[in-house]
Amino acid sequence: MSDIVRFKEHPSDTLKVGKGFSLKDTDPDSTPGYPGDKDDGEALLADLDDNLTLLQEQLFAESRFGSTKRLLLILQAMDTAGKGGIVTHVMGAMNPQGVQLKSFKAPTAEEKSYDFLWRIEKEVPAAGVVGVFDRSHYEDVLIHRVHRWADSKELERRYIAINEFEARQTASGTKILKVMLHISQDEQKERLLARLDDPAKLWKYSSNDLKERAFWNDYMDAYQKAFEKTGTETVPWYVVPANKKWYARIAVQQLLLDTLDGLKLQWPVPDLDVALERELVERS
Amino acid sequence: MSDIVRFKEHPSDTLKVGKGFSLKDTDPDSTPGYPGDKDDGEALLADLDDNLTLLQEQLFAESRFGSTKRLLLILQAMDTAGKGGIVTHVMGAMNPQGVQLKSFKAPTAEEKSYDFLWRIEKEVPAAGVVGVFDRSHYEDVLIHRVHRWADSKELERRYIAINEFEARQTASGTKILKVMLHISQDEQKERLLARLDDPAKLWKYSSNDLKERAFWNDYMDAYQKAFEKTGTETVPWYVVPANKKWYARIAVQQLLLDTLDGLKLQWPVPDLDVALERELVERS
Repeated sequence: MSDIVRFKEHPSDTLKVGKGFSLKDTDPDSTPGYPGDKDDGEALLADLDDNLTLLQEQLFAESRFGSTKRLLLILQAMDTAGKGGIVTHVMGAMNPQGVQLKSFKAPTAEEKSYDFLWRIEKEVPAAGVVGVFDRSHYEDVLIHRVHRWADSKELERRYIAINEFEARQTASGTKILKVMLHISQDEQKERLLARLDDPAKLWKYSSNDLKERAFWNDYMDAYQKAFEKTGTETVPWYVVPANKKWYARIAVQQLLLDTLDGLKLQWPVPDLDVALERELVERS
Repeated sequence: MSDIVRFKEHPSDTLKVGKGFSLKDTDPDSTPGYPGDKDDGEALLADLDDNLTLLQEQLFAESRFGSTKRLLLILQAMDTAGKGGIVTHVMGAMNPQGVQLKSFKAPTAEEKSYDFLWRIEKEVPAAGVVGVFDRSHYEDVLIHRVHRWADSKELERRYIAINEFEARQTASGTKILKVMLHISQDEQKERLLARLDDPAKLWKYSSNDLKERAFWNDYMDAYQKAFEKTGTETVPWYVVPANKKWYARIAVQQLLLDTLDGLKLQWPVPDLDVALERELVERS
């Protein structure tokens, strides 16, 4: 068995969107901070599964004793970027009992009749739970910006509303991790063709993906703008190069591990007389 | 690598509650139909993970094209029997996107103000989804029977209501799989002691478990009665010996596989001109 190749620099540093960040200058093919190859990456992913499970169980356990800590992973990306793969291969290690996944589709008529954050608030994870948003309120400043469904004044209102919303969640114990999976336009083409060529993937193909693909540059601009407007000190954005699926997975896994580590989790100690309970169980 | 040891007789036959079934005469230590040991069982579990994932994805895919097929696994058991372990180690292989888990706790005041099936109906899985009930409407004929919170007339009403409810779900595409994990009273003692002895498990210990444990025989009678009253041809009960956790896991995995196999799932073929779409993608 070969040694596990680990990150040299952590994604929480290298992938964080800071001042002067430019999405255009970010290479979707790159593997920042990681010296290994695909095989190394897959071995690392498997190796760290147990750590993730343990931290998640501690998060869940603490909530049973009054903690309001919780984690919300927000995943945004162009179609085929691999959001589903993150959910299956990274989140899959966690106990499903402590994971709450929500895929946001185009809003229903009812949802549209409310403010855009109405349907989002309802899906904030419960205390102790790791929530995952597959798409999110960011669609309201991404696709809405691209197709001009909202004018610039309304977009400004939404950026502010998003920051207030996320600050409020943070204040009530929710650690928010915002991730954009970044693929290139060429890579998307390959993946769309792969869907067309594989009977087990064909059902995922939608000609609508092609329509949105035509607005690629507008989407990149909208993402760049969203990062600038909603990337804050407490809730920064992370851009994960995702042309290499294996890299995107270990990067997100590491971001989750670092975030959970930062919560300083511990096993709760219930208020009970263990010796007495032992005695009672023995006699029962 | 050693060969995978498989079931000789399928749990869907050996563990099915049929006429004349007696819970008292079912050995929680046994491993019906399986010739292997713990190591063999763990290897089998891992080996079949991919099959389970594939079938689940097909179920999900079909629902995107109008199928209303779905699967609902109902897990009932005495405390510590390993419901959580089933969820983590068996369901864990599935794509979290297609799994909907609901743990039913003691009903809230609002839930109590309605009929006992009100809160259950709301949690029926969506089309294409594998739902898991960790406890269920069966609590209303188990703990309620044991503690006489419902009189015999009311219990009779509930058995009938359950059968009608399950028949209605079945008619609308839900395949229901009802599983009782069966441990012995001695095994529960060991597991409660283990919780008291391990700091990573202590938070799961509840002195309330001890209170319910005192009613062991009454619970066994209540289960026996529930099997007799609600085990039907289309929605039978399965009793899984669960003193050996590894056996319970492969048995439930096999039940899930057999059930999904029975749904005759296939990859949907979308109504589109693949050659044309290929051309459009190539040019985009």
